[in-house]
Amino acid sequence: MHFLLESLLLISIIIVASKAAGVLSNKIGQPAVFGELLVGLLLGPSLLGLMGFFPSPEVAHAGEEFLELLIKDLAKIGVIFLMFLAGLETELDEMKRVGVAAFNGALGGVFLPFFFGFGLSMAFGIEFWHSMFIGTILTATSVSISAQTLMELGQLRSKEGTTILGAAVIDDVMGIIILSLVVALSTQAGGDAGGSMLAGIGIIVLKMVLFFAIAILLGAFLFERIASWLENIPGSEILLAFGIVIALVFSWAAESLGGVADITGAYIAGLMFAQTRFKHFFEGKFKTIAYGLFVPIFFVSIGLQANIWDLSGSLAFTALIVVGAIVTKVIGSGLGCWLSKFKPMEAIRVGTGMISRGEVALIIANIGLARGVIDSGIFSIMVIMTLVTTLVTPILLRFLFPRQAEPVEADAT
Amino acid sequence: MHFLLESLLLISIIIVASKAAGVLSNKIGQPAVFGELLVGLLLGPSLLGLMGFFPSPEVAHAGEEFLELLIKDLAKIGVIFLMFLAGLETELDEMKRVGVAAFNGALGGVFLPFFFGFGLSMAFGIEFWHSMFIGTILTATSVSISAQTLMELGQLRSKEGTTILGAAVIDDVMGIIILSLVVALSTQAGGDAGGSMLAGIGIIVLKMVLFFAIAILLGAFLFERIASWLENIPGSEILLAFGIVIALVFSWAAESLGGVADITGAYIAGLMFAQTRFKHFFEGKFKTIAYGLFVPIFFVSIGLQANIWDLSGSLAFTALIVVGAIVTKVIGSGLGCWLSKFKPMEAIRVGTGMISRGEVALIIANIGLARGVIDSGIFSIMVIMTLVTTLVTPILLRFLFPRQAEPVEADAT
Repeated sequence: MHFLLESLLLISIIIVASKAAGVLSNKIGQPAVFGELLVGLLLGPSLLGLMGFFPSPEVAHAGEEFLELLIKDLAKIGVIFLMFLAGLETELDEMKRVGVAAFNGALGGVFLPFFFGFGLSMAFGIEFWHSMFIGTILTATSVSISAQTLMELGQLRSKEGTTILGAAVIDDVMGIIILSLVVALSTQAGGDAGGSMLAGIGIIVLKMVLFFAIAILLGAFLFERIASWLENIPGSEILLAFGIVIALVFSWAAESLGGVADITGAYIAGLMFAQTRFKHFFEGKFKTIAYGLFVPIFFVSIGLQANIWDLSGSLAFTALIVVGAIVTKVIGSGLGCWLSKFKPMEAIRVGTGMISRGEVALIIANIGLARGVIDSGIFSIMVIMTLVTTLVTPILLRFLFPRQAEPVEADAT
Repeated sequence: MHFLLESLLLISIIIVASKAAGVLSNKIGQPAVFGELLVGLLLGPSLLGLMGFFPSPEVAHAGEEFLELLIKDLAKIGVIFLMFLAGLETELDEMKRVGVAAFNGALGGVFLPFFFGFGLSMAFGIEFWHSMFIGTILTATSVSISAQTLMELGQLRSKEGTTILGAAVIDDVMGIIILSLVVALSTQAGGDAGGSMLAGIGIIVLKMVLFFAIAILLGAFLFERIASWLENIPGSEILLAFGIVIALVFSWAAESLGGVADITGAYIAGLMFAQTRFKHFFEGKFKTIAYGLFVPIFFVSIGLQANIWDLSGSLAFTALIVVGAIVTKVIGSGLGCWLSKFKPMEAIRVGTGMISRGEVALIIANIGLARGVIDSGIFSIMVIMTLVTTLVTPILLRFLFPRQAEPVEADAT
């Protein structure tokens, strides 16, 4: 028995549930990611059991194990495609343009949540590297929700709107760097039984820097050339296959060779393709594959792994993390902007626009869970934190901004 | 250990090998499918072992098992997308237009190879239903290779070219019907320990007819409506997700509820979408996903399952099957055309254009292997038969047709 037939139905159910929840979520004025995540949490833990696929317990065990691994694998590919797209959509020019305020806003919005998450976790007796990872998750920002809300309010092209979009890009890059450092160093610390810690860290950092250098050089010198050459070869989707292979190989290499998280590799691959004339080609094709098939599976796979009904007495910690995640992002990003001569109200608006953690926090938390740097209890708390921050962002933004007509189309990042 | 990281590299290697082989195959004047299949045969059996992924034998065992199932599952999705595309590209109007000659050509080209394959297998002492299945595999036709060759020769729009394209479509439909019958009846025969065989067959046929009726009714009445409704809902790739879900659910239902092969469901789903105004939308999107990612994996997965170096003494059978597959297609299709008042040479040309079994035979053989209706030895012979028929078709066509300029673009089916 190969469970292949069952997998077809399982994937179908996941896609339908995820897409339906996203659409319903939009209808009640919430971002699609909110509904997709929620349906994942509701469906997730019971999905495999409820389907009644399997005639006997033995078959059920082997079948569920394979189907769970399959879903995780497809979800992993989905995350890689998402981060490749994030890289493709990163406008390096935009980063330069929005300037000092966005940079400072991002800086404050990364470091204050990081130190808060780290400190609070340490205070609750969580291990050093686990605490570092919780801090890392809190640095995430996903502004697609803010961008949509600001567009509705006609404020996307305002001073605050532009700063939010710019700061989010810089936040992504800073987040990737922090994640890379924490993943690399925590792996080293975990395997190191005393001894030459410092030499070990030196090697880790060297590997990381080498990986980044080689990845960027390969991207800069070869991507455009190879793609231009493949473009003219007759065959089916050869250029797209090249992009897919690069996204997958860079992800594999990031973790296997560079010692950083796999998504870092996908992000860099996307970032380097964004500098070529194939940016829009890959954006279109990857969006088709990612959103049509793999990304819905990612959201439900989060639900497979989280169990928000069993927080086992850590309610105080959960509440503090959630409130702290909101407050430190507003204050951190706000402070950065205020120091860049924004008015207090403007600074608060930018900070509020950065609150939502969205899929970025989930992707990072997922990596932590897979590596054992956070456990499933912490993972569930991070999922709740993501849900709440995603929920409050549009509400707070609507409260803080005046509604204003602005017939400008804008693309969310 | 989840083997997820390893799977990324494995998928990448498969895609690169498959695409590179397809391109090289084109360069030496052979169809892409020939190279893709050949590289699958070369890579397949040793791929997982050679990669040196796994540090210890125990991990290697669990890892290889999961990776093999994963590759099979992705290949299965690839086949479903291929058959959905085949359905989408079936022109029912074209079938009517090419008329009697194409119909008779298809009929002869289906039944003569079927009875030859069945009879030869029985003569070699192979079980009844296994022999039926070998006959079924021989009915397949894949004219993409002939279409490409005829295009080069400037003969695609000739009397013979049009007849070949039309007959191939009718051949597909007849093949699906025979496959459905054989799968349904052999399952019944396998589970039946004497007794009410006839009543059993009645139920099987009823289930099959019910499945076809319901699938066609659902397709005719709901596909266009639901797609038109989804088209206007804001969200990412919602319409595509609908198509994917329909392809997967129809495949699942065909096998689980209708008792026929899963690909039959995918083919009918595609055929029904072909009658809607979304035909071209789905063609574009499914080609992207199928050829960019899943189809290359299918060809290599064939190689994972076949071992053409171990034919264990059945050389005579192999040789007869291969020669017979070629001869009976030429004679069967040729006879059908000749009876429809084609000249002998014209009839032979049409028959020759139908020789290549291509991916269609592989898909059917794969189903037989998964169901245990053929064993891995027969499977390997079918792979060789596919390789040889695919190889000789363009050579024979170039020999039979005069080269002639014809600056007409044509799409291969």
